[in-house]
Amino acid sequence: MKLAVLTSGGDAPGMNAAVRAVVRKGIYNDCQVFGVREGFRGIIDDDIIPLQLGSVADVIQRGGTFLRTARCEEFKTPQGLARAIANLRRREIEAVIVIGGDGSIRGAQALYEGGITAAAIPGTIDNDIPATECTIGFDTAINTASAAIDKIRDTATSHQRTFIVELMGRHSGAIALAAGLAAGAESILVPELPYDLDEVCRRLESGRSRGKLHSIILVAEGVASAYEVAAQLKKRTNQDTRVIVLGHLQRGGSPTAFDRILASRMASEAVDLVLAGKGGKLVAVQNGRYTNVDITSALAQQSSFDIEAFKLAKILSI
Amino acid sequence: MKLAVLTSGGDAPGMNAAVRAVVRKGIYNDCQVFGVREGFRGIIDDDIIPLQLGSVADVIQRGGTFLRTARCEEFKTPQGLARAIANLRRREIEAVIVIGGDGSIRGAQALYEGGITAAAIPGTIDNDIPATECTIGFDTAINTASAAIDKIRDTATSHQRTFIVELMGRHSGAIALAAGLAAGAESILVPELPYDLDEVCRRLESGRSRGKLHSIILVAEGVASAYEVAAQLKKRTNQDTRVIVLGHLQRGGSPTAFDRILASRMASEAVDLVLAGKGGKLVAVQNGRYTNVDITSALAQQSSFDIEAFKLAKILSI
Amino acid sequence: MKLAVLTSGGDAPGMNAAVRAVVRKGIYNDCQVFGVREGFRGIIDDDIIPLQLGSVADVIQRGGTFLRTARCEEFKTPQGLARAIANLRRREIEAVIVIGGDGSIRGAQALYEGGITAAAIPGTIDNDIPATECTIGFDTAINTASAAIDKIRDTATSHQRTFIVELMGRHSGAIALAAGLAAGAESILVPELPYDLDEVCRRLESGRSRGKLHSIILVAEGVASAYEVAAQLKKRTNQDTRVIVLGHLQRGGSPTAFDRILASRMASEAVDLVLAGKGGKLVAVQNGRYTNVDITSALAQQSSFDIEAFKLAKILSI
Amino acid sequence: MKLAVLTSGGDAPGMNAAVRAVVRKGIYNDCQVFGVREGFRGIIDDDIIPLQLGSVADVIQRGGTFLRTARCEEFKTPQGLARAIANLRRREIEAVIVIGGDGSIRGAQALYEGGITAAAIPGTIDNDIPATECTIGFDTAINTASAAIDKIRDTATSHQRTFIVELMGRHSGAIALAAGLAAGAESILVPELPYDLDEVCRRLESGRSRGKLHSIILVAEGVASAYEVAAQLKKRTNQDTRVIVLGHLQRGGSPTAFDRILASRMASEAVDLVLAGKGGKLVAVQNGRYTNVDITSALAQQSSFDIEAFKLAKILSI
Repeated sequence: MKLAVLTSGGDAPGMNAAVRAVVRKGIYNDCQVFGVREGFRGIIDDDIIPLQLGSVADVIQRGGTFLRTARCEEFKTPQGLARAIANLRRREIEAVIVIGGDGSIRGAQALYEGGITAAAIPGTIDNDIPATECTIGFDTAINTASAAIDKIRDTATSHQRTFIVELMGRHSGAIALAAGLAAGAESILVPELPYDLDEVCRRLESGRSRGKLHSIILVAEGVASAYEVAAQLKKRTNQDTRVIVLGHLQRGGSPTAFDRILASRMASEAVDLVLAGKGGKLVAVQNGRYTNVDITSALAQQSSFDIEAFKLAKILSI
Repeated sequence: MKLAVLTSGGDAPGMNAAVRAVVRKGIYNDCQVFGVREGFRGIIDDDIIPLQLGSVADVIQRGGTFLRTARCEEFKTPQGLARAIANLRRREIEAVIVIGGDGSIRGAQALYEGGITAAAIPGTIDNDIPATECTIGFDTAINTASAAIDKIRDTATSHQRTFIVELMGRHSGAIALAAGLAAGAESILVPELPYDLDEVCRRLESGRSRGKLHSIILVAEGVASAYEVAAQLKKRTNQDTRVIVLGHLQRGGSPTAFDRILASRMASEAVDLVLAGKGGKLVAVQNGRYTNVDITSALAQQSSFDIEAFKLAKILSI
Repeated sequence: MKLAVLTSGGDAPGMNAAVRAVVRKGIYNDCQVFGVREGFRGIIDDDIIPLQLGSVADVIQRGGTFLRTARCEEFKTPQGLARAIANLRRREIEAVIVIGGDGSIRGAQALYEGGITAAAIPGTIDNDIPATECTIGFDTAINTASAAIDKIRDTATSHQRTFIVELMGRHSGAIALAAGLAAGAESILVPELPYDLDEVCRRLESGRSRGKLHSIILVAEGVASAYEVAAQLKKRTNQDTRVIVLGHLQRGGSPTAFDRILASRMASEAVDLVLAGKGGKLVAVQNGRYTNVDITSALAQQSSFDIEAFKLAKILSI
Repeated sequence: MKLAVLTSGGDAPGMNAAVRAVVRKGIYNDCQVFGVREGFRGIIDDDIIPLQLGSVADVIQRGGTFLRTARCEEFKTPQGLARAIANLRRREIEAVIVIGGDGSIRGAQALYEGGITAAAIPGTIDNDIPATECTIGFDTAINTASAAIDKIRDTATSHQRTFIVELMGRHSGAIALAAGLAAGAESILVPELPYDLDEVCRRLESGRSRGKLHSIILVAEGVASAYEVAAQLKKRTNQDTRVIVLGHLQRGGSPTAFDRILASRMASEAVDLVLAGKGGKLVAVQNGRYTNVDITSALAQQSSFDIEAFKLAKILSI
């Protein structure tokens, strides 16, 4: 079987480990494996290269994605999709494994509906795909974020200051919640819950009355910019705060062991799927086990927010 | 309620995060919380201190355990146990939360059978408690190990050498398997499987015939010492190898985000258990969810080895 | 001799190592050592605590400063200074060792002129004290910055984007230059040189014509905000860029080996100075050797910019 | 000018940064640059490849050496040297820059005496080249070692144990001294000083009498094996200790900012030397400044041990 692999959307640490596993497990099963460069754009532009065992040597520990990634509007048009499928057919590539987030998973479904055995692997630091308990890159991102907060705390304590740290998460507070629980942040603002600055102020006050003179407030970017929060706090409490926007720092870095293992195992499942001729599937972790779900049903699921963990974070940072 | 917490057995990164969560959630629920120093020995010697909210400030990110730990033979005798229980009663401590491995969990059960509401939290880098999918410290240990292997690979590649790395695991290959999968080790020797040096040699040969001139062989300490493996390889292949024994390096270091969160949540479950008067329980993760099991049934379970992951590690390191 | 130590100004990693060395070397030489909390404010407020050998156990590896730090306007007034000196006299503290930047060194001189044997240790991440080749914290800061740039490069390469990274340095490009040389940044903008956006554009163009599709531009905060630079680049080249402001992340973290050794040795020199009754001195590294200079002459020196290193950074990032 | 670069001897973090700088500065100066693989063996075997600007993209942050390294006995024979020089002449390579330790520097001198414009850059983690204050890789190695000791201390404190840590250094205690000063080790055993186990025991006793129940003893491999030291301590004090041998872990890892800058600047100096036709030179740091010395005089210098730093380490770890 001829099998292609691509990474799409925002890059996530562990994507290289997933590509490596697709290539090696594919070749182990007598596939010819190809790499598509820069996501779906590479199919349209026929930017496709053969990958051997050695092509993925020494990449498991690297951040980013050596196949590169891009957003591609053209692929979303009927013409773009047709051209992509024509290119795959001409090269006799029967199966495509797509690694990426929400939009990338939709792209895999489009290829599948066009007759390609396409499967998707959830790779996004946001952990916002409801059908799976973990996505590749999230564990690395929360370690990067909590290590950054550990550093900020050194300075916050030394100067007895309040810091407001803006983390990624347009629609999801998953990173902010996990990083906040891991780093002991005093307040966490997430898009899934009402934005309650009163409570932040109350917690600042009660901390101060206990003798705690520094504080870390996390805010997911979907809630507000950290600068806005700082301005509002200044107005209410007349307290100066410092702002840090972690931004793209959260995307990079060598993947954690967890993400490398997750990527390797999800890629193995994906290869099994396409070898069995099963397209239109998303690899997932459910109840702690590797499994797969129809992409259509996966994308219909509502995301849920772990309110228990959120309440615990509050109790533990009193 | 008066509630005590202790850490026992080998130290594991995340134990401090667990103690912090017991203290804060306990106080939040109007408990008086005490810390026992140096494990069960501290109960016998009445080395018990009150812990406040501030006692656990700035410990979530620290390795080791500030309550310290020790092995205690006396506690295993009827006299030792009786003395421990008498001390707890005199102080009116009704509940004890024990954080540690196999032996520590047994100790919690002994207290429970003596009338104390004792619950256990699995804290050991070995991940060898069959009743739970994760134990506190394992994630940090495999990150430490795979980061070390990443460094060793720099030198192995530069000099085209074979390295044999000995990892912890007397009865369990869990660390070796996870670190090997994460770091792309060429061979992994674990106590759960027959010790097959022939295959190691075959893999070395086949790698060399593909032009691969370096190799990393992992060996769990329960299989053999890395020095022994090196001597045997030398005999068979006349190839010189280099040996690294990671040893206690795997125990230390700031816990990962995963271990901090796991520790916090398990501790929260444990406090809920003792508040509800439920002793003799082990907090566990099963099917990816927080739950608890009777210690007696937990200890009766057989450990299993993830043979799928092991086979995958082989396929991916060809 | 009664000897006090304080940290002042912005915190810098290694300050704890310096305080530890003052305490231990002081006690070794039969001094009684005191810690002043929150910089010069602590002298004025008599917030002074005795420090023993054990007070500085387990602090050498910690970021920030456990004595805390603050800016203190009152100390700059004759009344404030008089009160500070009166407090020291009442406690019979003859000598004070001040760890901090520019303003803190001036404060040490003020104490010295008031009759106290005061010496200063340069502790600032900015490395902007012309009389010494190194200051405590700089090495850690440039490692933090270059590690961050390594991460950003993962994403820049994966997406073929240009990133603009703002680093600390109001009047000094030392951090930007060192981090840029270490991380291979394509352009570095420093306050010591004219702000030449034309050249940045030329380098972007020439890189692109060589097939290089990503780029990292560093800007010291004293030049312009990274957002401004991004807006100007957009105007000229119509290219979208991403912005990261490292900010206070550069202050925190466990000090590097270099900073711990530098801090320990500088502190040792400072204790020798005050034991010998020599006040008004700044400990320094000159020509690679530990020495000391009169604070008055130190503060008169003009800072110089390492133009050779700057030119080299350009050549190496073609 | 045709210019070749090679890395030889033990690998050291920063060698890649040095090769990158030779290549880019060489090309900037209109040289044609070649890379020799696996040290001097590659000249003899004519394993020489052209290097372009892009050949050294994305290597500055990598440990090890992508040109690989090896020891080569044949090069030390007149026949081997003659063959090497013949190969260089045939390719019209006039200049060779050698990056490595003691033996590699001698090799550069041999090439120079054979008529090649050869210069050497000190690259070794041991910092044992007396003519220069720093060698490439040392700063990374002491950071790796002190970070490892930080981790070991977590466990040592938790269990109140004594650890004996064996560090690299056959003839030089430089790594042990620097890591010991940086990590606050209680005792440091180096080959430059008499091996005095009595003092180690005294320090253990005095620590214990102060209530300090854990201790870290560093031993450079040239003094004794850590296992031997452990056995002797056991005999004298009946105290059990734990042993860690850091070994090749000290060689690997991403170079620190210091080592990347040092490597880049030394390489720049080396290119300047060979462009000026000056062979037989070693690039060095003296009095904190970049300079160069005749290899013959450099190799004649006696190494000295920093006894001041050693005494300070003792005072600070009481």
